[in-house]
Order: sequence, then C-alpha cells, then structure tokens
Amino acid sequence: MGELAFAKGHGAMNDFVIFTDPAGELDLSDEEVAYLCHRRAGIGADGTLRAVLAEHVPDWEGDKRLWFMDYRNSDGSVAKMCGNGLRVFLRYLVEEGLADWPVTVATRSGLRSGVPSDDGQFEVTMGRVEFAGTATQRVGGRALPGSLVDVGNLHLVSFLPDDLALDSLDLSSEPVWERAREVNHEFVEVLGPGHLRMRVYEYGSKETMCCGTGVVASAAVAVRDYWPQLDRVSVETPGGVLQVMLGAEARLLGPAVIVARGRVRLPDGESRRAADPGRR
Amino acid sequence: MGELAFAKGHGAMNDFVIFTDPAGELDLSDEEVAYLCHRRAGIGADGTLRAVLAEHVPDWEGDKRLWFMDYRNSDGSVAKMCGNGLRVFLRYLVEEGLADWPVTVATRSGLRSGVPSDDGQFEVTMGRVEFAGTATQRVGGRALPGSLVDVGNLHLVSFLPDDLALDSLDLSSEPVWERAREVNHEFVEVLGPGHLRMRVYEYGSKETMCCGTGVVASAAVAVRDYWPQLDRVSVETPGGVLQVMLGAEARLLGPAVIVARGRVRLPDGESRRAADPGRR
Repeated sequence: MGELAFAKGHGAMNDFVIFTDPAGELDLSDEEVAYLCHRRAGIGADGTLRAVLAEHVPDWEGDKRLWFMDYRNSDGSVAKMCGNGLRVFLRYLVEEGLADWPVTVATRSGLRSGVPSDDGQFEVTMGRVEFAGTATQRVGGRALPGSLVDVGNLHLVSFLPDDLALDSLDLSSEPVWERAREVNHEFVEVLGPGHLRMRVYEYGSKETMCCGTGVVASAAVAVRDYWPQLDRVSVETPGGVLQVMLGAEARLLGPAVIVARGRVRLPDGESRRAADPGRR
Repeated sequence: MGELAFAKGHGAMNDFVIFTDPAGELDLSDEEVAYLCHRRAGIGADGTLRAVLAEHVPDWEGDKRLWFMDYRNSDGSVAKMCGNGLRVFLRYLVEEGLADWPVTVATRSGLRSGVPSDDGQFEVTMGRVEFAGTATQRVGGRALPGSLVDVGNLHLVSFLPDDLALDSLDLSSEPVWERAREVNHEFVEVLGPGHLRMRVYEYGSKETMCCGTGVVASAAVAVRDYWPQLDRVSVETPGGVLQVMLGAEARLLGPAVIVARGRVRLPDGESRRAADPGRR
C-alpha cells in the first residue's frame, strides 16, 4: 500500500491537503485526489496543493527554479488560481524549508508572491483585476444586477438592495444567470466605508466559507462604484475577515495555518470500497 | 505550540481522530476536542478515541492492564459507546503494536472485544440488547410507532409503513417523541428476509452516515418481530453495510480503516482565532 507525506492547512476555512513532489512524479488520478479530500474516508479538504519544481511542469515557460502550485479541486479537476490556497502554499513551502520569505511561485495564472505581515497573517499578490461588463443573476426569485470581474477566474458580483438581507439568501442551489459559462457568484452587503460582508457560491463547490478571488473581485467593484478614493477594503466572509489592497496588481491579506503533518495511505482496493459503498 | 501524535480512521464513514495517552495525562478540554474534530480548522472527525491504560482511569474497577477507550463526541461531550469507533480503536491498537488479536478493551459500557474476519473486516462484541417498551416518534408530519432499545445508549426504532419511503424522510431536524430524554432515532425499511436498510438521526450529531449501536438495535427489533428464526441480519446504511449477529451478547461485523498518521498542532491563540472568526 502506497503512502504519501502530507500537511493539512487552511486559509479562512478554505482547507487543503498539501504535498511536495519535486520531480513531478505524483500526478494523482482524479480518484486519488477525491480520496484525499473525502472528509470521512480520507483526510478531508476543499482541494489539494502539490509543490512541483517548475522545470518539471511542461507548460511553464518562466523561471524553472521556482516551485509551481498545482491546485486541484476536491473532485480532482484542475483550477487556475485559489487565493486562500496560495497563502497556505507559501507558508507550507517556508515551513518545510523549501523557500524563504519573500516567496515567489509559479501558478497557472502566472507568477504570485507573498510575505508574512506583522500581525501573523500573510499578504499575497493576486494579479490584475479586469472588469468584464454587467449581467443579471437570479437568486431566490429576485433578479439582481451584477458586475463581471476576471481575477484569473470569472466572478459575477451583486451588491444587495436595502430590502434584501445577506443572511436571508438561499444559496442551497446555484444562482441563475443568462450565459452558459462557469462563474462564481458573489453577494455583497456594505457595512460601512471600506467594509463589506460577502457570501459566495462557487460553481464547482456550492456555497463555501470563503473564496479569495471572489473577495478581491467584490472589493474591486466596491472601490470602482462607491469609494474611488480608497485603496484598501476589508471583507467579512463566513470563514474569516480578509483585506484587499487594490492597485496595478491586487493584493490579499489573510490567515494561513498549517494544522497537521503526517503520512496518508493512498487508495487501494480496500480504501475505495470503503469510500464508495455503492460499488460493492 | 504543543503537538499531538494522532491517527485518523473510519468505520462505515464514522470517522475519528485517535491518539495514545498511556498514563492518562492528556485530558483534552472540550475546546481542544472540538478543534481536532473541526473539519476545516482542525483535522476533522465525528469524535476522538483516546487509548488510556485502564489503571489510570479512576472509575474503572476491572482489569487494570487493559486499554480503555475514551470516546468523545465532536463537541467534546463524553459518550458511553460507539460501535463503529470500537472497531477502529481495536485495529488502531493492533497496528500501533499496543495489543494483539483478539483484543479486549475497557469502555464506559464495560468490556468489549474484537477480531478480524476473513474478509478483511472486524467483528466486535456489543454487549446485551435490552428492549425498553414502545413509543411514538413524529417525522415530517407522520406519527410512527417505535420500539425502545437499550444497547448501552437508548434507541427508538421505527419500521416504515409501505407508503413511506426511507429516502423520502426529512431528517434535517430531530424527529419528535413524547419524552424529554436523549434518544437516537432509527428508521428502517425491510429489503428482504434478514436484510434491512436504515437511516439514523443521532441526538448529539444530527443525521449521520451510520451508527453502530443503532444498527444493532434495528436488527434486534427485526429479529424479535419478524424473523425469530434468524440470528444474523445485514443492515445497509448510507456509510456502508454491516452485519449483526444476535445472541446473549450482540456482535457487529463491519469495516475499520486507518487512513493517516501524523502530528497535529494543538490549539493555541492563533488556531482558536482561525477556528472561530466570530470572536475576533
């Protein structure tokens, strides 16, 4: 039975199984990723973060000495960027002795870097924010105007009207919008100048505790529409509070915690049977 | 920052953080247990299983050389027995080199023992089953007659009428019964002679994937009422299929898997803040 050395960590309650694979030899199957992320039959996480030396990533054309962040969702599918995962990944690299602050890594969205902050949190670069027009989304029978924002992945951000409370929204199913394309849905309430509350429905994951790119997208729309004089916005999410600094490149400040380290048994016949009793 | 060596394992999708504490020195606070069991901020589990030498358990009056199974729910509260946890606990003791098959352990419900079966599963003793009368429980507007069964903890078992499908039951809130006392609620469908399907609502945990004592209680009622000639019943649960052997003492056969081993950081200020953003 194969084993894999892993760490488990989280950023604003987005949690990850993290492991190092310098030579890019551990290209796990979707089934193996799903096993690691299964909250009862495996370790449990929203996704996996694999650290691979960039020289072993075929599509990477930049500095080959960097570590590449290979993020995969809990169903094994590949994702371009994860802002909460990025902070956890950088902290992991430094704690494992694989990098020193400030750390720059390769990702599917390009170079990203980060540093610890004075208050024990971590600040990471999030790339350029691009506005992509407007659209309408429907949630709980209400049609809400929204702004499309590209932060590596696409977001549809709606600020709620006064008569609609954020906590009252039913996000048990995916909000509807007119185009047949993958989008993350953000719903935002203004608490005061530079201070937002947000809930998010991620197309691949349903409602989540926090989405780092969604936090950046919501802050960018708020500064554009309400507070052009501000360059820093605080965003409360069910998973925690994050700060967004806007500029030529957005930056995201928030927690990153490494909870545990160990060795996990990779799935074999026994584990798979246990994880999926319907197959017996 | 303190660290704790742990294993994670599950039996029919009931999962546990398991650790060894020979001298009984690690009496974790409710908050520490909740942290270990938190699925995002900690490792994630339905409960913890602590292995303590019985000589260090003040209330234990039996053989002091045994290992004592200290089971606690994910909120830190103490529970007397957990049939799925028992199988995982025995496998853990043997894999850690702390015991050899057959293993007998001390529990809050008395002595329990177990052995591996030929098919890679584990068979454990579950003590005496005692019938404790009848009662009615209401679920989704329907009143269902049920049998009260004591298997160390108390169960109320209802076999469904033909016009009520098990999958249609709404167990998102606790079924109602007439007495103000903690009970686990089992709902059972007969698939054929000696073959049941069951869902369970545990008073401390809401609907769960499986409850080992509830499986035994349901099988015992079925044999009493329908199949007095049978001494073995198969019970399908959302977490897997278990076998119950009835007699002077019930026995339960099912899977037990150790998934991972490692070291976890015990909660300090940072972890607690991260786990409970509302306190910031």
